[in-house]
Amino acid sequence: MTQQIINSVKSVIPLTKKEEKAFTDMLKIKHFKKKEFVLTEGDICREITFINKGSVRLFYVIEGLENTLNFFFPNDWYTAYESFLDETPSIENVQALEDTELLQFSKSDLYQLYDNHPVFEKLGRVMAENAFRVVVNRSKMLTNEQPQERYLKLIKNRPELFEKIPQHYIASYLGVKPESLSRIRRRIIGSK
Amino acid sequence: MTQQIINSVKSVIPLTKKEEKAFTDMLKIKHFKKKEFVLTEGDICREITFINKGSVRLFYVIEGLENTLNFFFPNDWYTAYESFLDETPSIENVQALEDTELLQFSKSDLYQLYDNHPVFEKLGRVMAENAFRVVVNRSKMLTNEQPQERYLKLIKNRPELFEKIPQHYIASYLGVKPESLSRIRRRIIGSK
Repeated sequence: MTQQIINSVKSVIPLTKKEEKAFTDMLKIKHFKKKEFVLTEGDICREITFINKGSVRLFYVIEGLENTLNFFFPNDWYTAYESFLDETPSIENVQALEDTELLQFSKSDLYQLYDNHPVFEKLGRVMAENAFRVVVNRSKMLTNEQPQERYLKLIKNRPELFEKIPQHYIASYLGVKPESLSRIRRRIIGSK
Repeated sequence: MTQQIINSVKSVIPLTKKEEKAFTDMLKIKHFKKKEFVLTEGDICREITFINKGSVRLFYVIEGLENTLNFFFPNDWYTAYESFLDETPSIENVQALEDTELLQFSKSDLYQLYDNHPVFEKLGRVMAENAFRVVVNRSKMLTNEQPQERYLKLIKNRPELFEKIPQHYIASYLGVKPESLSRIRRRIIGSK
């Protein structure tokens, strides 16, 4: 049950048996049904999450419209990082896209782990660096790229999304309306 | 010369004499004249910088227009974080706003420091977390706030900028043209 997450941690830092035990001791397993909310906007996100099985979608709502920030699959990590860091109400929602099994640990347990086993600070650093990369890349995509360019890049970089994720969620991730996505697809197919 | 930076580090992590020495050993002092470039777009940013004296402006150019990302003053830290992390050419420029004294250390020295003294991993984590906050806050400002709201918030949160920074740089930081900033100021004064 914890082998995947331990492998993932060990790809970043070496772990002694003792450190591995301290880490797995703080894990909690959680199950969510398809469409169930793991996190609802307004809640404070107090956990870091690792996907064991299934998948989730991270999104926020502005003026009634859902803006999808990301999708997460087995072996992915996520947190509503801003809420987690500053303990502010999350503007984000996390919803299970299918029946999903998660491993979670709390911020307080993580900070205690940092104190007891400083080797984990590196894991925290790498997670923060990745969160930075994700937000910069998304902001660049929405600021500098036209919808068609975003679509072509997504096909190239994350082709698996198109097999796993409903079309309207992909549109919402690309920051376009579902009709626009259909139009882009027709244009590309037409030009081939 | 290094007392300010040591105090700044110690506000995040406790340091033994040995760790303090390992840290100061990797510092390099640099001097820049007013308007001189500390980093030019296209360069890879390989250092983390601490401001001892003076100030700098971080900006990028799109279609001939300068977009100011931030200003840094004594006791501030900065890096062109994306370029630094991924060793990609920087899209950002850093320019001295006045005669400026900086302390810098290289990524390779920092990573060696992490290996030899893991206590510094926490410093790396906190820097990454702060970089994340900065980029999220700026992206929220530009996406969700009207120019007048941005201006009023800046007056409230960083009043010192208005004393230290030329008006047209403040306009560029707020994402508006200098004329628009003048109009906003007149409107606010007129409504009082």
